[in-house]
Amino acid sequence: MFLMPTLLSDTNLFLWLDLEDPTPEEAKYVLEDLFHFHPLSIEDCVMISPSPKVVEYQPKEEDRFTPYLFMVIHAVDYSRKDGVFATKELNFFLGKNFLVTYHETPIRSVAATEEQAVNSSVHIARAPDRVAYTLLDSIVDNYQPALDELSLEIADLEQQALQSPTKETLNKIILIKKEVLHLRQIIGPQREVLARFARGEFKLIRAHMVPYYRNVYDALFQISELAQSYTDSLTGILQVYLNMSSNQTGEVVKLLTLITVITTPLMMIGTWYGMNFKDMPELSWKHGYWIASSIVLVSTAATYLYFKRRKWF
Amino acid sequence: MFLMPTLLSDTNLFLWLDLEDPTPEEAKYVLEDLFHFHPLSIEDCVMISPSPKVVEYQPKEEDRFTPYLFMVIHAVDYSRKDGVFATKELNFFLGKNFLVTYHETPIRSVAATEEQAVNSSVHIARAPDRVAYTLLDSIVDNYQPALDELSLEIADLEQQALQSPTKETLNKIILIKKEVLHLRQIIGPQREVLARFARGEFKLIRAHMVPYYRNVYDALFQISELAQSYTDSLTGILQVYLNMSSNQTGEVVKLLTLITVITTPLMMIGTWYGMNFKDMPELSWKHGYWIASSIVLVSTAATYLYFKRRKWF
Amino acid sequence: MFLMPTLLSDTNLFLWLDLEDPTPEEAKYVLEDLFHFHPLSIEDCVMISPSPKVVEYQPKEEDRFTPYLFMVIHAVDYSRKDGVFATKELNFFLGKNFLVTYHETPIRSVAATEEQAVNSSVHIARAPDRVAYTLLDSIVDNYQPALDELSLEIADLEQQALQSPTKETLNKIILIKKEVLHLRQIIGPQREVLARFARGEFKLIRAHMVPYYRNVYDALFQISELAQSYTDSLTGILQVYLNMSSNQTGEVVKLLTLITVITTPLMMIGTWYGMNFKDMPELSWKHGYWIASSIVLVSTAATYLYFKRRKWF
Amino acid sequence: MFLMPTLLSDTNLFLWLDLEDPTPEEAKYVLEDLFHFHPLSIEDCVMISPSPKVVEYQPKEEDRFTPYLFMVIHAVDYSRKDGVFATKELNFFLGKNFLVTYHETPIRSVAATEEQAVNSSVHIARAPDRVAYTLLDSIVDNYQPALDELSLEIADLEQQALQSPTKETLNKIILIKKEVLHLRQIIGPQREVLARFARGEFKLIRAHMVPYYRNVYDALFQISELAQSYTDSLTGILQVYLNMSSNQTGEVVKLLTLITVITTPLMMIGTWYGMNFKDMPELSWKHGYWIASSIVLVSTAATYLYFKRRKWF
Amino acid sequence: MFLMPTLLSDTNLFLWLDLEDPTPEEAKYVLEDLFHFHPLSIEDCVMISPSPKVVEYQPKEEDRFTPYLFMVIHAVDYSRKDGVFATKELNFFLGKNFLVTYHETPIRSVAATEEQAVNSSVHIARAPDRVAYTLLDSIVDNYQPALDELSLEIADLEQQALQSPTKETLNKIILIKKEVLHLRQIIGPQREVLARFARGEFKLIRAHMVPYYRNVYDALFQISELAQSYTDSLTGILQVYLNMSSNQTGEVVKLLTLITVITTPLMMIGTWYGMNFKDMPELSWKHGYWIASSIVLVSTAATYLYFKRRKWF
Repeated sequence: MFLMPTLLSDTNLFLWLDLEDPTPEEAKYVLEDLFHFHPLSIEDCVMISPSPKVVEYQPKEEDRFTPYLFMVIHAVDYSRKDGVFATKELNFFLGKNFLVTYHETPIRSVAATEEQAVNSSVHIARAPDRVAYTLLDSIVDNYQPALDELSLEIADLEQQALQSPTKETLNKIILIKKEVLHLRQIIGPQREVLARFARGEFKLIRAHMVPYYRNVYDALFQISELAQSYTDSLTGILQVYLNMSSNQTGEVVKLLTLITVITTPLMMIGTWYGMNFKDMPELSWKHGYWIASSIVLVSTAATYLYFKRRKWF
Repeated sequence: MFLMPTLLSDTNLFLWLDLEDPTPEEAKYVLEDLFHFHPLSIEDCVMISPSPKVVEYQPKEEDRFTPYLFMVIHAVDYSRKDGVFATKELNFFLGKNFLVTYHETPIRSVAATEEQAVNSSVHIARAPDRVAYTLLDSIVDNYQPALDELSLEIADLEQQALQSPTKETLNKIILIKKEVLHLRQIIGPQREVLARFARGEFKLIRAHMVPYYRNVYDALFQISELAQSYTDSLTGILQVYLNMSSNQTGEVVKLLTLITVITTPLMMIGTWYGMNFKDMPELSWKHGYWIASSIVLVSTAATYLYFKRRKWF
Repeated sequence: MFLMPTLLSDTNLFLWLDLEDPTPEEAKYVLEDLFHFHPLSIEDCVMISPSPKVVEYQPKEEDRFTPYLFMVIHAVDYSRKDGVFATKELNFFLGKNFLVTYHETPIRSVAATEEQAVNSSVHIARAPDRVAYTLLDSIVDNYQPALDELSLEIADLEQQALQSPTKETLNKIILIKKEVLHLRQIIGPQREVLARFARGEFKLIRAHMVPYYRNVYDALFQISELAQSYTDSLTGILQVYLNMSSNQTGEVVKLLTLITVITTPLMMIGTWYGMNFKDMPELSWKHGYWIASSIVLVSTAATYLYFKRRKWF
Repeated sequence: MFLMPTLLSDTNLFLWLDLEDPTPEEAKYVLEDLFHFHPLSIEDCVMISPSPKVVEYQPKEEDRFTPYLFMVIHAVDYSRKDGVFATKELNFFLGKNFLVTYHETPIRSVAATEEQAVNSSVHIARAPDRVAYTLLDSIVDNYQPALDELSLEIADLEQQALQSPTKETLNKIILIKKEVLHLRQIIGPQREVLARFARGEFKLIRAHMVPYYRNVYDALFQISELAQSYTDSLTGILQVYLNMSSNQTGEVVKLLTLITVITTPLMMIGTWYGMNFKDMPELSWKHGYWIASSIVLVSTAATYLYFKRRKWF
Repeated sequence: MFLMPTLLSDTNLFLWLDLEDPTPEEAKYVLEDLFHFHPLSIEDCVMISPSPKVVEYQPKEEDRFTPYLFMVIHAVDYSRKDGVFATKELNFFLGKNFLVTYHETPIRSVAATEEQAVNSSVHIARAPDRVAYTLLDSIVDNYQPALDELSLEIADLEQQALQSPTKETLNKIILIKKEVLHLRQIIGPQREVLARFARGEFKLIRAHMVPYYRNVYDALFQISELAQSYTDSLTGILQVYLNMSSNQTGEVVKLLTLITVITTPLMMIGTWYGMNFKDMPELSWKHGYWIASSIVLVSTAATYLYFKRRKWF
């Protein structure tokens, strides 16, 4: 926090300044007083913004800052408990000889990169574009556990939908679909931001670093393809679920019909000979009752076999 | 209203002229006689046009106007009562040293900006492109309450669809979907208009103002992403609703079947032994009635337990 | 019809020739012998072609025509009676100092423009690109009644679908959907044709006329947006309709179940004590009948109240 | 088949060589030994390839052929009997002064063009790009009968779906949908191939022939629009069909419920007074039977009228 | 494995090095120590990456490698047993005078190409771009059996869905749909990679080889069109299946209703005259029983004929 502006003017040095949950005063001191960043980028940095972006700031005559890239990117943190992706905003100010990162909550990727930078100072700490790459690479890598989690839950849902679809299954499908959608909404604009790096649009990223950024872009592209395939899987699962559920009603109707059909002979005979007409000759036939019983038995059995053969049960 | 044309020729001055619900004569005086705007832009300004646009007018030799940008943009005003987005048209004529705004109903953003311009004259009132930015920024900010309202109603609908789906739920879903669609129809072309500003296409917007316009564009982009996510949510809710509703029918059919199945043993035995055959030995068995009763009780209980185990109720 | 070729060579004059339902000889005389148009454009003009187009013809050495634009556009005529959009083809040959229009049936826009040209000759009749603009503008304006008609019918259908959905409602929805689709198929390519004018692609349209063509394009664009929103409305209405219709079946099933459930106690008791066993003690109980009646009444009332509370009716 | 290579070197002559179902030796002689075409184009020509293409071959130093265009296009042949589009492959090798066409089965368009070329040699036979145009034009024209056939069948299906939807209707809808899809799959890439001609991409097509190719492209474009509208119609018909079919089930359920409801009073009274309780005072009332009959009649009639008024039948 | 770096410096020689399942040491020796490939491409090569890519590496001053193309492509292997596409990754390093291929499992296409290269050394072995083409061509050819397999299974499913739709049919449809989706996910990015070759973007591919790569691209394009048509077929089959399945329920409901309707006359008469009213004159009519029987017979027959005529069975 107590850096000398003179330090910055030495172009041989490279400064990485990580602001984790700074007080407004600290933020103001660093971003405004020290680096004189463009007010718009400071506003974007301090406010929570749901979508990533990258803007290149070129100083005008009256401006006091050197050219820099401002970037907002979102790290993801998935925990099965809540079942929601928690995204954490990470802001970059990337200049020729400085990198300022700003975030309000601790981010694993930042912590890891810091450690790496301190320990193995040879490779990473040489330049801001390399540190930024390491951070981005680590952020993209951290999507993996979230994706694995989702993949497991989707496989689970597929089982459920096929074997025991309940109302909860539907809610779960809708919920996971929402999650995947959310994931895609996070990744989509991030991909666009990284594509600009991968195309080498920015002069502040040295040419030989561009393939590294392209690599990060490729990784993100694969994640977004995966997310797309999750959406397709879930649509399939939903179709299976809805079909299973309408199949169940179909089965119930079949059962109802079956019972009606099978009891029909008995009910008809029974009701018919329950009549009280004076003159019903069958009633006094010697074997009347046995004939009636036989008719009922035979026709019930016939019905039963008929539906058995048509594979109703 | 009583400005001297000489005022306009002084390029050091900057004029903001706000026409709120002017009479046709006033409008004609300002737009035609004073500024000599292109007849097409005057027509577009005076008529109600449902979609925003921006056109750059470059004077030809015979024309008497200086280059200017004509823009139509729509402010939004959402009130839960009617449940409809009321849009208000705001027309801009943006020149090098003048800004003419034209609207038929009072617009909050305009009033606020006017006040701001009068009070803190230092910052805003310096240039027409800055005032225009302030107006646009304020208009885009005013989308927020409408979005919050929608977000609440959608969460509400999700609850309803899952817990007590009624016909009204469907109507509500369809209605809100329409609203969101309407919102997207408003925002879509507006985004395209602002994208042209954000790309710095217009010379009348000074280069150092372009990042500000890009900021407005980004805000609008996020709103449009949000609207897209609302649409997706509503599609999910509709799916839940339709499933719940078909589930209800399924449950009713189950109940019908259950009752039929459970009463079947009693009805069969009852009907059968209601027959009046002379010779029905069971009828005169000593424990005939008790045997019949037991058969009915046992088979009814068995059926009951069977369906209980298959989780029918 | 009896124009001198010498007239055409005078570049200060401007000729508008309107061929309404000409005989093949007339058509041949004007298009081939007088103007020497390219055979392909003559073929396109004479034949009925379902989609609009615009082609720029540049003469080669051996050709005898001057550069011209050939355009096919469709005017629309909607009458509620038949419920179909009747489109009428209008062909333009637009040269530096001539405009030839060709159509087989009378077109309102052409008649109106002719009248306007004769009466107020000052403004319109000055140049072929201005007359062509007036014609196009009028054609696009004439879409409005058709759109209003559609809008009314869609509002009507929405009412019907919500309140009394019948088979006719479905047919009507499908029909109007077809109409809107047809409208969009007409407008789509027309928009593309006009977009080329709006971009100022053609040298025969003078630069200061381009904003006018852009205005026509904008109007068409708004119509096409409207048509899109009609499609979306109709999809929503269809969804409501299908849901109402499946709701109706659900209600019927509920009724069936309700009746079955409510009559069940009576039917069970009634059937049971209709048995003819010799020894059924309840039958000779003193208050047997009243006990049975009370059981039936109480359980029926209980069932009734239970379903009443669950809001089945 | 026995052409002299010397003939080809005379650039004033133009050769059209049509290979209809040649033996492998003939094909090899013409394509390899005589014209020295690029091996890839020979392979593409001899093999059956499902999608059209156009490739421009420019000779390298070591190559012995002159520049030429290789094109694969598919003619269509629709017969109601089988209900499938039979496509026939036609391969073009189009050079400055030669056209080689290769096809394995007789193609109507080729035969017709040959005849035309022999009879009216003045117009067509002048140049390979003109003959190629004539062939393409004829091929595209031959789509018309197939489209008319489809159009008829779709109108037919619409009738069926609305009036007497059966299982066969569904199969037919699915079948025709497949056909239309197939048609679109044929036309899609063909359009792209012709678009390249229409844009004048190929030097071997002389500039003044380009409008002719554009005309063929336009015709194909209209066909593809038509095919799109067929798809939309079929989707609509399917929706009608599915709705009619679910309506039928709804009607059946209504009937079932109606019968149950209407017979309920009689069944209740009938069952109730079939009980054998010793002491059932109503049974010995003087007008007991007539009262019971009246109750049944009145409540049945009331139920009947109630449902009649609710338009159940 | 024991090649001299001196060999590589001889630009007249061409080396193809195939690394099949190398040990990490071997891989490191060849990729790093011998060829000094860019670390990113080595990482991409050694790791499993689900999506194909192509990257051109241009050496910077400090780099020790010569320009090369790095490409990841996936060969496919379909066996009906598992019903899943097994993809095998193949990595290319393509330089001016070398080709290094790297894969972890044996790939048929590689083995075949090796054999071909050894036996008929004249044609293929001349240049790395030619060998790479042969490999790619062979890989694309190997998609064919997988496609044939899918095509068969889809035809099978269509039969099943129409004739005997069971739950298994649905699962099968969902499964095959997944497979086709997977296939499309593999082919999509591969097409994009090959498109870059077909456009001749890479200098390492000699101009006269580009048509060959375009040929491979065309083949892949046709496969992807086929896969698209499979998806459409499966969607159609699913629609048929769902309709057949809801039709079945409709048929069952029809049966239930039919039985209810047909037994109604008998049940009504039977129940009615089962009543025990003292004074029921019909019971003691002489032909009472026969009249009742006749009424039942006639009305049952009438009902039967009515539904027979309405084609209920």
